[in-house]
Amino acid sequence: MKEGMEGFPVLKVQGEGRNTARDMVATEFPLTIILNEEELTTLLCTPKDLEYLAAGFLASSGFIEGREEIKGIIIDDERGMVRVETKETKEIDRELLSRRYPQAISHINSGLKVKQGQVFSLMDKFQGLSPLFRITGGVHSAALCSEHEILAHSDDIGRHNALDKVFGRCILEDISTDGRIMITSGRVSQEVLLKVAMRKISIILSISAPTDMAVKLAAAFSITLIGFARGRSMNIYTESWRVVAR
Amino acid sequence: MKEGMEGFPVLKVQGEGRNTARDMVATEFPLTIILNEEELTTLLCTPKDLEYLAAGFLASSGFIEGREEIKGIIIDDERGMVRVETKETKEIDRELLSRRYPQAISHINSGLKVKQGQVFSLMDKFQGLSPLFRITGGVHSAALCSEHEILAHSDDIGRHNALDKVFGRCILEDISTDGRIMITSGRVSQEVLLKVAMRKISIILSISAPTDMAVKLAAAFSITLIGFARGRSMNIYTESWRVVAR
Repeated sequence: MKEGMEGFPVLKVQGEGRNTARDMVATEFPLTIILNEEELTTLLCTPKDLEYLAAGFLASSGFIEGREEIKGIIIDDERGMVRVETKETKEIDRELLSRRYPQAISHINSGLKVKQGQVFSLMDKFQGLSPLFRITGGVHSAALCSEHEILAHSDDIGRHNALDKVFGRCILEDISTDGRIMITSGRVSQEVLLKVAMRKISIILSISAPTDMAVKLAAAFSITLIGFARGRSMNIYTESWRVVAR
Repeated sequence: MKEGMEGFPVLKVQGEGRNTARDMVATEFPLTIILNEEELTTLLCTPKDLEYLAAGFLASSGFIEGREEIKGIIIDDERGMVRVETKETKEIDRELLSRRYPQAISHINSGLKVKQGQVFSLMDKFQGLSPLFRITGGVHSAALCSEHEILAHSDDIGRHNALDKVFGRCILEDISTDGRIMITSGRVSQEVLLKVAMRKISIILSISAPTDMAVKLAAAFSITLIGFARGRSMNIYTESWRVVAR
């Protein structure tokens, strides 16, 4: 069985025709995150890169800041649990689970500039990366990039999980996110914008649409927000000086 | 200003060209739901049909079952709050907010059958219905249908909200959902499947992909699950006897 998907029988209807076939469907896996013996939450996710997801979720929610705080991560696939232990155990602030601004976010000062041809080329690479999407049509992808290449990539049935997996990998493998580009297949809502702002991303690039709040927050933090990046076109909503013609 | 959207300046890049324009972006609005003076949750949503969203959210979460329990719904647009009062006030079970199976779900016995041409025709009508999607490209839609026509339709930046708005309208306006068809633009996850199962929907029809858990639960409850319904084609994953060739 392929990772993150399962085959099911399906009746394919096309016009007046009907054929039975077998199709791959994205797997939905409940993962309970346990921090220092205390159950935090259960995420529905794609069952791969679970240590990245756990680290990224904890960082995005404000429970941890960096790898040096983590003592160990134990994945229990069978029971759908991941146990994270930190070196110092402080009392868990459950309010973090429902707060929108988990920590202070600073203005993005990065002077990063990319050529618009480089942006299209990163999008091409990104779209060639996700076999899970190509096969199931049912997952989101996210990737951290420099101007030239993709540095870390993940996919997941949840668009937030895909981002958290990328950030979790960056945390665990010491990949700096500062001044980088994040590509996402999903819509850019205020929660997505805040998540990338927390990790000091300079440019967020989405195949989909942004919301009004995402546009306003991107302007407030000086993040370049690009939507509808498809083929050789894109819409730049904020800080367009970072994308130069040539 | 149009409902649920706002205009923003945008730099449109196409190939090597660059043009400034003004584009409509979907509005993201925080709505706090207050049940009998107690704050339950804050949803990020499209600010229209808020009374439907409140009623649908309360029903989907298991706080109410029908319209007869509701004494009043007061929308406070300015402060982003909706206050729902019920006739009887019982202690609020906050566990309902995080539970996946808010109530017992029974097997769907409906003998509903539709012709595949009718399904395509409903999809055509559905796709013509959402001006917010056509203009912003950034919202989800949901619609309750009989074999012949669309009975209730809503859109929202959240795919769960769009479904809850349709169910809320059905509750407030006494439209039966029993044995009906639900169309959604969003992916069908286990949470979506459970939500439609609770309201006794017979057929769920999506433009997007299902997850493995949605397919398994649809089989368990005898719901017809259709995915990738686009143009004149669709994939029927379960209970395909409800869709007849002619």
